[in-house]
Amino acid sequence: MANCSAARVASHAAPAPPAPDPTTTVRSGVVRADISFDHLGERSVEIAYEAQGSAAAPATIVLGGISAGRHLAPTAADPSPGWWPGVVGDGAALDPARQQLIGIDYLGGDTEDGLLRPVTTHDQARALAAVLDHLGIAAASFAGASYGGMVALAFAELFPARVARLVILCAAHRTHPMATAIRSVQRSAAQLGADTGQAGRGLALARALAMTTYRSTQEFEQRFDPGPLGVGEPGEPPTRFPVEDYLNARGADFITRFDTERFLALSESIDLHRTDPASLLPHALLVSFDTDSLVPPWLVDELAARSGRSHEHVTVPSLFGHDAFLKEVGAVATLLKTGTPEVVR
Amino acid sequence: MANCSAARVASHAAPAPPAPDPTTTVRSGVVRADISFDHLGERSVEIAYEAQGSAAAPATIVLGGISAGRHLAPTAADPSPGWWPGVVGDGAALDPARQQLIGIDYLGGDTEDGLLRPVTTHDQARALAAVLDHLGIAAASFAGASYGGMVALAFAELFPARVARLVILCAAHRTHPMATAIRSVQRSAAQLGADTGQAGRGLALARALAMTTYRSTQEFEQRFDPGPLGVGEPGEPPTRFPVEDYLNARGADFITRFDTERFLALSESIDLHRTDPASLLPHALLVSFDTDSLVPPWLVDELAARSGRSHEHVTVPSLFGHDAFLKEVGAVATLLKTGTPEVVR
Repeated sequence: MANCSAARVASHAAPAPPAPDPTTTVRSGVVRADISFDHLGERSVEIAYEAQGSAAAPATIVLGGISAGRHLAPTAADPSPGWWPGVVGDGAALDPARQQLIGIDYLGGDTEDGLLRPVTTHDQARALAAVLDHLGIAAASFAGASYGGMVALAFAELFPARVARLVILCAAHRTHPMATAIRSVQRSAAQLGADTGQAGRGLALARALAMTTYRSTQEFEQRFDPGPLGVGEPGEPPTRFPVEDYLNARGADFITRFDTERFLALSESIDLHRTDPASLLPHALLVSFDTDSLVPPWLVDELAARSGRSHEHVTVPSLFGHDAFLKEVGAVATLLKTGTPEVVR
Repeated sequence: MANCSAARVASHAAPAPPAPDPTTTVRSGVVRADISFDHLGERSVEIAYEAQGSAAAPATIVLGGISAGRHLAPTAADPSPGWWPGVVGDGAALDPARQQLIGIDYLGGDTEDGLLRPVTTHDQARALAAVLDHLGIAAASFAGASYGGMVALAFAELFPARVARLVILCAAHRTHPMATAIRSVQRSAAQLGADTGQAGRGLALARALAMTTYRSTQEFEQRFDPGPLGVGEPGEPPTRFPVEDYLNARGADFITRFDTERFLALSESIDLHRTDPASLLPHALLVSFDTDSLVPPWLVDELAARSGRSHEHVTVPSLFGHDAFLKEVGAVATLLKTGTPEVVR
């Protein structure tokens, strides 16, 4: 099934492309593959993918946070927005008219293939390799942000020959204990809900807490009035604050598209993530944001320093913390275009 | 009952002291007082206090975080440590041999006087005034940290004539929305536990989360290995991380000395805290710590700037975030001694 020519990938490391293959613009589906998991043994699992753009065009894998998925931009069959609007789409930095853009749904949680947990970023990388095999892609470029950046780093460690170019945003070779601390509390909240018949409430609470780590103190200070919406007098509902309403709304939204087991698996997967900095490929662009407390610039500096190679690490000023990869569309597009010309050609 | 002479207080604003009154070294008990609460109307409540040192010595009110209380240092009757070891005690910066040191238990929660919530820092200040009346103290100096600093600011706003000197650590005139956000999640976690028959688990979770805001990213990075203690294979307990064990231990300890209603009341009280910066007294020393994310230096700068007066604001470098007032004993003692000679004479 695999067309293992690296030819479809634009890269100084890859050979010349083959004759164009006029396929449909969008290919999506499910790949069934045997994956050798780090902790689950050999398992047959399904991996959902969506590829936009000509199969003859250079391939770029586009990977986002734990709540991102295979759908990268609106298509005729699925006009809903992708998870990275402004960065992926017609005329954008990652443009399906010029590249083949590939997304997957991450493995993890209570699936038809059984409970997938613990699952690691290396497991996700193996799943991704199976999708590339299925699509006949030998090697590809990567634009990976947050959890997707970790998966891209894990992929580069496992399959260096299949990586043409890496752009890693808001991700590093490891987590740091404060970030793990807050995620562990999120998992405990989700578990408390699940154990007491209040799964939605627990998961919403976990997401509310996560939101505090995706944004910055500075943004919240500018955005929310610090005073209460109204003080809960005795016998009334408790006092509510503007920022609390925002967090609760984000939590309520999250539970319409996530469940506890999947959240637990992917949250834990973040904290289990480790790659050897020495495995970082030579032509990687590392991007961090100055207000990102989850993946602070110093952690990305550590990755670059320990890689033993000279790496470009760009720290972009932003108000938006970890979510800057979603919010700083202009800066991200510029970096993808000029910092990594291979990705956008 | 009140001896409203300001004479027992060492202050350039107070008149000369009266003849010494040879009382016992420790006076403790419960004051019953009618308090006009901000949201609860007129209520008769009990306020527990402990005063160490001669009643003839200058009085200093010592107020700490929401889990601090009236017991400031070991006494013959209660040899257990106080909540501010190294700062309060024989030979320390706040020394009962040289001053009368007064602590109270904060109001709030499900008490014998009914459910006290919402309770404000101004309510605590009114309770404190009742204790001072009972002890016959017209005016006193204040060393207030964290929630205690907020209460001291509220006291100074309500009773400026009764304040000789203010030293405020890790507190400001208001909260900021990111801190409120994380406390609101704590309250939701405690409430989820209480609503589902798992009050202890919910409260421990709230405290675990609070601990992440009391310390700094830098400290956790130095202190905890980022890797898991062991990966929870399928069918086993979930993966645990060193920092998670620490947080869980702190949570388990907390629920032996706190209950949900009290936590909810005091946590909410923090977020309801507001004082007019213009009410800040002229001779106040403001102390912040550079890694304190709950009360960051910029927020204390705002208080000083908006007070309309020149105020001394000292920002101390520390690894310990908000908890630096408990951990940086040397710096705190020096500030209490040299920055505020009136407090220690």
